[in-house]
Amino acid sequence: MYRTHTCGELTLKNNNEKVTLCGWVQRIRDKGGMIWLDLRDRYGITQLAFDEGSVDPSLISQVKTLGREYVVQIQGIVIERVSKNLNIPTGEIEIKVESIKVLNPSEIPPFTIEDNTDGGEELRMKYRYLDLRRNSLKKALFLRHQLSMETRNYLNNVGFLEVETPYLIKSTPEGARDFVVPSRMNEGEFYALPQSPQTFKQLLMIAGYDKYFQIVKCFRDEDLRADRQPEFTQIDCEMSFVEQEDVLNTFEGLIKHLFKKIKNIDLYEFPRMLYSDAMTYYGSDKPDVRFGMRFVELNDIVKNKGFKVFDDAELVVGICAEGCSEYTRKQTDELTDFVKKPQIGATGLIYVKFNNDGTIKSSVDKFYNEEELKKWTAAFNAKPGDLLLVVAGQKEKTQKALCELRLEMGSRLGLRDAAIYAPLWVVDFPLLEWDEESGRYFAKHHPFTSPKPEHVALLETDPGAVNANAYDLVINGVEIGGGSIRIFNKELQQKMFKILGFTEEEAEAQFGFLMNAFKYGAPPHGGIAFGFDRLCSSFGGSDSIRDYIAFPKNNKGRDVMIDAPSVISELQLNELNLIVKKQ
Amino acid sequence: MYRTHTCGELTLKNNNEKVTLCGWVQRIRDKGGMIWLDLRDRYGITQLAFDEGSVDPSLISQVKTLGREYVVQIQGIVIERVSKNLNIPTGEIEIKVESIKVLNPSEIPPFTIEDNTDGGEELRMKYRYLDLRRNSLKKALFLRHQLSMETRNYLNNVGFLEVETPYLIKSTPEGARDFVVPSRMNEGEFYALPQSPQTFKQLLMIAGYDKYFQIVKCFRDEDLRADRQPEFTQIDCEMSFVEQEDVLNTFEGLIKHLFKKIKNIDLYEFPRMLYSDAMTYYGSDKPDVRFGMRFVELNDIVKNKGFKVFDDAELVVGICAEGCSEYTRKQTDELTDFVKKPQIGATGLIYVKFNNDGTIKSSVDKFYNEEELKKWTAAFNAKPGDLLLVVAGQKEKTQKALCELRLEMGSRLGLRDAAIYAPLWVVDFPLLEWDEESGRYFAKHHPFTSPKPEHVALLETDPGAVNANAYDLVINGVEIGGGSIRIFNKELQQKMFKILGFTEEEAEAQFGFLMNAFKYGAPPHGGIAFGFDRLCSSFGGSDSIRDYIAFPKNNKGRDVMIDAPSVISELQLNELNLIVKKQ
Repeated sequence: MYRTHTCGELTLKNNNEKVTLCGWVQRIRDKGGMIWLDLRDRYGITQLAFDEGSVDPSLISQVKTLGREYVVQIQGIVIERVSKNLNIPTGEIEIKVESIKVLNPSEIPPFTIEDNTDGGEELRMKYRYLDLRRNSLKKALFLRHQLSMETRNYLNNVGFLEVETPYLIKSTPEGARDFVVPSRMNEGEFYALPQSPQTFKQLLMIAGYDKYFQIVKCFRDEDLRADRQPEFTQIDCEMSFVEQEDVLNTFEGLIKHLFKKIKNIDLYEFPRMLYSDAMTYYGSDKPDVRFGMRFVELNDIVKNKGFKVFDDAELVVGICAEGCSEYTRKQTDELTDFVKKPQIGATGLIYVKFNNDGTIKSSVDKFYNEEELKKWTAAFNAKPGDLLLVVAGQKEKTQKALCELRLEMGSRLGLRDAAIYAPLWVVDFPLLEWDEESGRYFAKHHPFTSPKPEHVALLETDPGAVNANAYDLVINGVEIGGGSIRIFNKELQQKMFKILGFTEEEAEAQFGFLMNAFKYGAPPHGGIAFGFDRLCSSFGGSDSIRDYIAFPKNNKGRDVMIDAPSVISELQLNELNLIVKKQ
Repeated sequence: MYRTHTCGELTLKNNNEKVTLCGWVQRIRDKGGMIWLDLRDRYGITQLAFDEGSVDPSLISQVKTLGREYVVQIQGIVIERVSKNLNIPTGEIEIKVESIKVLNPSEIPPFTIEDNTDGGEELRMKYRYLDLRRNSLKKALFLRHQLSMETRNYLNNVGFLEVETPYLIKSTPEGARDFVVPSRMNEGEFYALPQSPQTFKQLLMIAGYDKYFQIVKCFRDEDLRADRQPEFTQIDCEMSFVEQEDVLNTFEGLIKHLFKKIKNIDLYEFPRMLYSDAMTYYGSDKPDVRFGMRFVELNDIVKNKGFKVFDDAELVVGICAEGCSEYTRKQTDELTDFVKKPQIGATGLIYVKFNNDGTIKSSVDKFYNEEELKKWTAAFNAKPGDLLLVVAGQKEKTQKALCELRLEMGSRLGLRDAAIYAPLWVVDFPLLEWDEESGRYFAKHHPFTSPKPEHVALLETDPGAVNANAYDLVINGVEIGGGSIRIFNKELQQKMFKILGFTEEEAEAQFGFLMNAFKYGAPPHGGIAFGFDRLCSSFGGSDSIRDYIAFPKNNKGRDVMIDAPSVISELQLNELNLIVKKQ
């Protein structure tokens, strides 16, 4: 036993007790005559006091040899503080120290272990074990632990079984790129790491397990963006004998449970929004519905008035920014610059100011008189004092640009409060997506997603028009999870593979085991998977998923702390029967 | 909503209710006039009744088209059974069916989905999703789910945080062979899959997380034995500011909790047995202590009496089988054959019968008279009626052979009751193991295990004599978990690597990050890891860990269901910059 208590638990109730504590030296304040030392562990900070007038001088000289991040064990008596700190649980006491033992000294850390550290990101990634000592990361990983515990408790209570599926599986060409693992015992052959346990959870439904979940690592060898990691964690779930609404209700229950348990927030019933409406009114399949400012299409009103930009546009669409009619030229120019940024992609921005005095002023007065512009304001239900912002061009590009502008205006107007959570289900996604480059359809969700029963006939005639029993959970503009009702019939699955460009042989080689399983009594089933890293960052109110991963990789897929990946020995390569090509 | 109830919940309380059920056709009994159908789902079996006299003839003809494993949805009324089955919860009712809908037909399964199936292991592995429908596997996976839930609940309640550590890490030459993962973005470099999260959990201790756990997949590319899998699951744990007894007490608490919650068994306090005693008295570091029959060494008594076998032997050692003095010649011959099997490895077996009449008869009467043999029986504290079984030879080999004979005798005498659980801690393992072949020491546990403080000086003079702060949890002769107190000092860790034959450069390249971390305030820490697959099979009273893994690999490391590993495309190999050598 190294300690009797942690650094987070002693209070006035322990007054006069003799205690032994262990921890790290957070800070030493030498006030001449009195020295205070903040001792830190996972549980908190306890103040140690050394009165030069009343303790052994050797103890004082020992304290003076200590530095930040030294690990020490101390013995002493709990006493009441003169100057109390009511912000921390231990703030009413301090320890009159009788002895100190240095368990391990510390060199001066490469950056300060403080909430506002002086360390840059590169340095903190290299010394991740020191960065993890900081409060913000400790809180993030504690939140992650809580979320996983509560997720498991909820799902266990409603009858889900956690079943582990294998990590060494088979490479499949559909979807993202696989990480592969050469097999030494099966020469020239490779396992793949799972991008998700999709086929295994479907097999568990066919095996009759009824309700499955797993919190599980998944792997994708993609070029990384800021918020992507080569390995990431999913809450993966599947249910049998369910329709779409059964799945939505079950997992709406899970999300509500998590918000209640962890944030004490009672969420309203999640609205269901059609994918087509999400695109029409928000220009996105993950709308932030903390605020309105819905898109209004103006094609019918604005075309054929001599303004070529609008006449040539596939879509003319805008939003109404309430109370912004007095925006200055500088402000509207800023917004124009914003939409013209390459990542936003609009060619320009038209504005209409519905002034407080009832007059209307626009950037296209040359083409539209006040009477015409009144039709615009009417279409938006605008009031005096509002500002209309309109973009035009090719449909998808224009929707995307206006979506970004809407979010920007939401932020500027303070409509995106991080303390407000607005979840919704987006439903009825298209089944397929046409890819111009390869000239074929791709599965919008994945090849196992079932078409709406009433659209099955369309698969032959107009595959692009087929909607799927697929759904996403969106919170505050972030996709937290997605899933679908699956195909459970061999013939339909075969047809789906054919539409996706698989030959019969390819389909059989890759997914024959699943289609074979469909022959032996597959139940109707469906499920969902949540991005756990993102769920954590969303709960934590942060944009960075890295803060919620103990040991993340950088943008090159490297762990700079352990320096992985790295070269392996010739012996290892020989055993695997592999040669690395010389460049 | 496909159903109002599951097949496991309807009882007389639901009498006369109209219900909708879904499930699989387990069995159809056509008694002429009456047809019964057992409908199965995860939750149980409900009997469906069709009275040919009282229902629509089209329904009867529909039932007659159904086969085993068809998935159906039925509607009907709950009625009381005439002939009740009180062995199942639903055995007092049946459903008077009004309509049936076939959700999916089934071909005839390749083996019967029954407790005693007619399918061979190969076939059942190929159709694992059908094998998983059988009760024994369903129970096994449900037990596994329970054990993981209860493990997490217990550890969470005593303050452990579950932290996920990375799967894409760095290859290290120490220990078993790594599975490696080529990196596309870092040409010519490889990740490795973790054999355990050892270094990461130590870094979490250095980061101040105090109590960590994780239920986590680990990977070893070893030639497989029956009970080994290339991927396996560990309950991995680590604690700071602890000594050995703190770790043992914490995890003794976990194991007791699991036995209480899941089997309602109250276990006694786990004894601590020295490794040296385990070897001396049981010939094994994982003794089955459900029964005594401890080894007695006879060297002093039996040597120099003219019996060359004993005179030449390093060790003469035996056990006393109570009440076996009347074993026939056939029986003692069987035991002799047993110890001479190559996998047991003894050269012969000597027996001494302490007959009920007080006389003594041995297989070495030529060399030892009754007076001499009385010294033997005295050494064993034998009683009339007992049988002494003695082996001799090189020490380790002889201990191993007698250990096997002891277990065999325990089984023959019914002393190894599967319903009895006898856990113990084996402690004070040697730190190092000398390997004749490579002429160097290997770490008995792993290179991070700390020597006993009082043995540190011996590291320089007699490394083989150094004991470690290392411990194993053993239940009924099976090693369930093992761990150690770790080195947390850079110099000692460097010395350890040196003893293990690392050059300074190798140690730095492989484990520099850890030794570097030791410089910034590493706390004393230690931990343990449990083999979760084996823990499950131990709880389930089975020798086969495969039954407790949803989708296991075979002895060649293959998943025969999905046919992995498999060849990958040239495109994939090119992207990874790899060539597979032609044989």
